[in-house]
Amino acid sequence: MSDLDAAAVSELSERARKLDAADELAYLRDRFVLDDTVYLDGNSLGALPAHVPDRVADVVRREWGELRIRSWEESGWWTAPERIGDRIAPLVGAAPGQIVVGDSTSVNVFKALVAAVRLAREGGPAGAGRDEIVVDASTFPTDGYIAESAARLTGCTLRPVLPAEVPGVLGERTAAVLLNHVDYRTGRLHDLPSLTAAVHAAGAVAVWDLCHSAGALPVGLDEHDVDLAVGCTYKYLNGGPGSPAYLYVRRELQSRFDSPLPGWNSHAEPFGMRSEYAPAEGAVRGRVGTPDILSMLALEAALDVWDGVSVDAVRAKSLALTDFFLECVREYVPEGRVVPVTPVAHAERGSQVALRCGDAGEVMRRLIARGVVGDYRAPDILRFGFTPLYVGFADVERAARVLAETLRES
Amino acid sequence: MSDLDAAAVSELSERARKLDAADELAYLRDRFVLDDTVYLDGNSLGALPAHVPDRVADVVRREWGELRIRSWEESGWWTAPERIGDRIAPLVGAAPGQIVVGDSTSVNVFKALVAAVRLAREGGPAGAGRDEIVVDASTFPTDGYIAESAARLTGCTLRPVLPAEVPGVLGERTAAVLLNHVDYRTGRLHDLPSLTAAVHAAGAVAVWDLCHSAGALPVGLDEHDVDLAVGCTYKYLNGGPGSPAYLYVRRELQSRFDSPLPGWNSHAEPFGMRSEYAPAEGAVRGRVGTPDILSMLALEAALDVWDGVSVDAVRAKSLALTDFFLECVREYVPEGRVVPVTPVAHAERGSQVALRCGDAGEVMRRLIARGVVGDYRAPDILRFGFTPLYVGFADVERAARVLAETLRES
Repeated sequence: MSDLDAAAVSELSERARKLDAADELAYLRDRFVLDDTVYLDGNSLGALPAHVPDRVADVVRREWGELRIRSWEESGWWTAPERIGDRIAPLVGAAPGQIVVGDSTSVNVFKALVAAVRLAREGGPAGAGRDEIVVDASTFPTDGYIAESAARLTGCTLRPVLPAEVPGVLGERTAAVLLNHVDYRTGRLHDLPSLTAAVHAAGAVAVWDLCHSAGALPVGLDEHDVDLAVGCTYKYLNGGPGSPAYLYVRRELQSRFDSPLPGWNSHAEPFGMRSEYAPAEGAVRGRVGTPDILSMLALEAALDVWDGVSVDAVRAKSLALTDFFLECVREYVPEGRVVPVTPVAHAERGSQVALRCGDAGEVMRRLIARGVVGDYRAPDILRFGFTPLYVGFADVERAARVLAETLRES
Repeated sequence: MSDLDAAAVSELSERARKLDAADELAYLRDRFVLDDTVYLDGNSLGALPAHVPDRVADVVRREWGELRIRSWEESGWWTAPERIGDRIAPLVGAAPGQIVVGDSTSVNVFKALVAAVRLAREGGPAGAGRDEIVVDASTFPTDGYIAESAARLTGCTLRPVLPAEVPGVLGERTAAVLLNHVDYRTGRLHDLPSLTAAVHAAGAVAVWDLCHSAGALPVGLDEHDVDLAVGCTYKYLNGGPGSPAYLYVRRELQSRFDSPLPGWNSHAEPFGMRSEYAPAEGAVRGRVGTPDILSMLALEAALDVWDGVSVDAVRAKSLALTDFFLECVREYVPEGRVVPVTPVAHAERGSQVALRCGDAGEVMRRLIARGVVGDYRAPDILRFGFTPLYVGFADVERAARVLAETLRES
């Protein structure tokens, strides 16, 4: 078992130094609480933005503790879901007024899919016959489970297919299609514009899950005519553990958005306390119950780190980081010991690198013990997420080097 | 416009002083952050428990900021929903393992009602024909809106009736019945044992909304064979603004609980990342997506204030507080100026007093300006909530006196 090639280490370390020196986003790292760990799990839980603790303390001590009930109005609690939605909007290419924050991703998938089926069934007999929900067969499981429930409750059949096969199965029976922008395991970026166009050509409604793309690369919801989208906020948006998810409903569809969860927060006059439901106009129609204020306002503060940051610049750095990681892995890791499953083509890559590795669970455990934090997804995937806001090129080189050392020991 | 009768003020103030001196729960007030305000809106948003800010700061700075992803396991984040459910259980008369925390009340009403209809339809042709959901016509609106959606998605008809009329409409078509333990407007306590028994006698499933009773009076979920129950945690449980709600599923029903929101957190093996859904056993089956950790752990800390507190003692003080408030109002407020709509009988009273008053919105605005905080519910209700953990008898006397002064001025 040989040591790493010292020349290679020297060369790649020097490359990393130069790349970091030239990194226009390097200054953003100071906006986060970080330590000596190489944190490559921001695609699971983003790091803590440095100013969030003081904001949360203020929400708890002053807004809750002192103002109490008055804060619903005076501290802007009531309007937080749509206000924070408008903060997320530019990060996913949406004009204001189309995103509302609240509930978990799973709950938002449910709202979006049931509403999508209802939208697809409008407009006469052709629509009424639509009885299939197509779902990405490689999806993060919760999307599939929830899609199955939405299908059952709307009298649809669930049709799981791989994203590449989606265009081939679309037809006059298709009601809605639920796809992931970036695959949670492989890091593969799917072609949102062309898949959305194919769904529309079939007369169906496109629902996108942005959990693994929002905050890491341009999404272009408005530009590509996406109908409905959901996403979490605790990955590349750094909103904190379990911070609330969001729902996008394209403006033209909002007046026909028919939620299966019409809670009082989505009422046209929520404090009218009327027994008849009358939906609010706009993004607010996607709200359900009382919003979770502590988590929501932590998220709002966390979004401040995006001030002055261009998503295009983030994407450019993300690709540079993952390119460099793949290069370092090729250079350091013995041939065949790991197999990258993340596509090499930039157009097909999100902001993570997944490596197949027989003893992935044990390898990740040892990597974490050595200060390189990625994660493991059963049965054999090492995942490394690269958050361009706080990961640098020296981190990347170190992660690949420690991975190689770990693998050589085993 | 006469002043208040000085003798009456003197007598009632002295009574308040004695009642406070004899109050065995008076020491609990120090567990909360309070000021000179008489805070009678704990039935909308409970006051801040004094130790919660430090706990939240620790969750943010150390658990999120330092441990990051490791906290899902090391800080017990993953198991928080069922762990905190077990903290709420004794407050509502439930044995451990039947309550899970997460999502909003509205979302939990949806889970409970759809699951209730499915339970009612089990067991052959008799069950399959059940196609009515009965709902409290005077309910807090969100329950009715969500019940309507649950009915629509399960092929049921919604039948809104007043709680007193429920026994008369139950029959072989009844699938599920959704009732409020305490009415949010009037403060009327409904007879949970007898209504549950009537629902069961009809072969239907009973779902109770405990938002306005949990933490204020004994509920006895297990004792009275309640099937399913939901409740919020930000009123008498003081969990903070929009803190997550909870779902109770009676142990005998758990293996048949068929959730319409089967998110990955409810999977038997959530990290197996399997594409086929297999529900977990127990209360965990009521989970959906990633739990909202900041709000959830604030709630967990908030529940510490219940250490050593008996719900029976809380109920006794609650009744004493509301009795005394009604007496002070009778004594101070000009005859006919306000009309109590909260029942006089203890067996029919929750922990709030609602007064009908023509100009209720304006009166409440002025009361708040004078340091007595209740709330207003359209069109004509003044609501005063009495949280026995931190409201005292002098508060009660002052609130009634300020109300009387306010009403005499107008």
